[in-house]
Amino acid sequence: MKTVSNLADLRASLDELRQGGRTVAFVPTMGNLHEGHMRLITEAHKNADIVVASIFVNPTQFGENEDLSGYPRTLEEDKKKLIAEGCQLLYTPNTADMYPEPDLTRVDVKHITTLHCGASRPGHFVGVATIVLKLFNQVRPDVAVFGLKDFQQFKVLELMVQNLFLPIRMIGVDTGRADDGLAHSSRNNYLTADERERAPALNRILRDTAAAIQSGEHSFAQLTRQAKERLTEAGFTPDYFNISRRLDLEPAGDDDRELVILAAAFLGRARLIDNIQVDR
Amino acid sequence: MKTVSNLADLRASLDELRQGGRTVAFVPTMGNLHEGHMRLITEAHKNADIVVASIFVNPTQFGENEDLSGYPRTLEEDKKKLIAEGCQLLYTPNTADMYPEPDLTRVDVKHITTLHCGASRPGHFVGVATIVLKLFNQVRPDVAVFGLKDFQQFKVLELMVQNLFLPIRMIGVDTGRADDGLAHSSRNNYLTADERERAPALNRILRDTAAAIQSGEHSFAQLTRQAKERLTEAGFTPDYFNISRRLDLEPAGDDDRELVILAAAFLGRARLIDNIQVDR
Repeated sequence: MKTVSNLADLRASLDELRQGGRTVAFVPTMGNLHEGHMRLITEAHKNADIVVASIFVNPTQFGENEDLSGYPRTLEEDKKKLIAEGCQLLYTPNTADMYPEPDLTRVDVKHITTLHCGASRPGHFVGVATIVLKLFNQVRPDVAVFGLKDFQQFKVLELMVQNLFLPIRMIGVDTGRADDGLAHSSRNNYLTADERERAPALNRILRDTAAAIQSGEHSFAQLTRQAKERLTEAGFTPDYFNISRRLDLEPAGDDDRELVILAAAFLGRARLIDNIQVDR
Repeated sequence: MKTVSNLADLRASLDELRQGGRTVAFVPTMGNLHEGHMRLITEAHKNADIVVASIFVNPTQFGENEDLSGYPRTLEEDKKKLIAEGCQLLYTPNTADMYPEPDLTRVDVKHITTLHCGASRPGHFVGVATIVLKLFNQVRPDVAVFGLKDFQQFKVLELMVQNLFLPIRMIGVDTGRADDGLAHSSRNNYLTADERERAPALNRILRDTAAAIQSGEHSFAQLTRQAKERLTEAGFTPDYFNISRRLDLEPAGDDDRELVILAAAFLGRARLIDNIQVDR
């Protein structure tokens, strides 16, 4: 695996790798790679000839009081993991190069960016959409692969790609989990041993709520209230717990059949998110 | 010249035209083509193997009370002019295809979009940047050619291309003018015979102001006031008349050497814009 850190080197490496019309799958990450990311690399291999990953901790998607400076950076371990999975090219740009002055351009996907995580983290999805568009324009992949743990992020980026006519096929990969159901996340690093014991409750409560809906329960307000109570009992501070329709992440109504339940909750220093899709 | 109206046909035609590695210059327009546009096609030919033009009257760059519905549409004459200039491909998409539902994504180039024309036409440059990015992603040109009559538009798009790392070379072409100095513009069609006589005053006053600056005058506030008075005397209703630095279109200060004077003024139904660059 080659590692490049600037755009000229990236383009030269891509030109070489693409020779003979080989297709490129791109996996953008913020590093601190875990099993969840490895699932993305595996899926990328299935969908293109060449797999390119990036590691960039993007400042514009962190709020003022969020964990930008403390976000885990583990480049050497990350490289080993990517090599083991057969990733061909790693791109590790720096912030000054990704946000050249005057840095004025922002991409917004209206409305959907203000719901759920967007309500708790103003500006977060504008930062995500902008950096992903920059990376897409630099890498120009045929396919891009994202984890569905960030379900809302995937929807935002999918809409961006559609609305802007980017010739990129978007692939969402099911969330990787520990045996006890906890979704893989870099932010699990923040959990104490005790918190790590409690953490799977988030996924358990999502699954229980999904099961209740599938067995016919349709008082979504009551299900949401119960879920938040259970999260609080398990030691979480709930941020949101929303039963939504999958199409546009608006609140689900009685007629909606394809749902997704989205949740975020603080556990100690960590803000954990998870979701579950439900068809009824 | 081939004319295509949907993305699939556009991509098929482009694939064919690009064979053998031929490069593409793109000239996006709103139609009602005049000599000014023909200068863009000529410049496009100098910078690439293939010239592709588009005609699309973009609704999102018009304000509520602006001239969207009355904007002149002259497709058959436009085609003849493009054929005469050797344009190889014309793309005429429709609004529903360019803004598929849910239509949520917008591109903003902060700050510079709120000055000058952006102050008078809120949302205008977000509409411009968004449609140009959509067209860029559809056509994927090597080079894009725009007229410098819309100097601010050119700066907005140049910043967008830089900030988003689009691999497109931006070329700005000097404004085409009638012998009396009036800049070519589709909106000149709105002028009565009497207004057409008065219209060159806009360019004359810009040139006089530039000459005064070059001869050492540096009271920009006074120059601006005088220019607006002269515009009013000539029958215009001035919108803005701003002496700016060329880099970022902020108000020029004593130390700035590379300037541009930007003006917009109403004359009857028409809102005319023009500008002049000054080095001192």
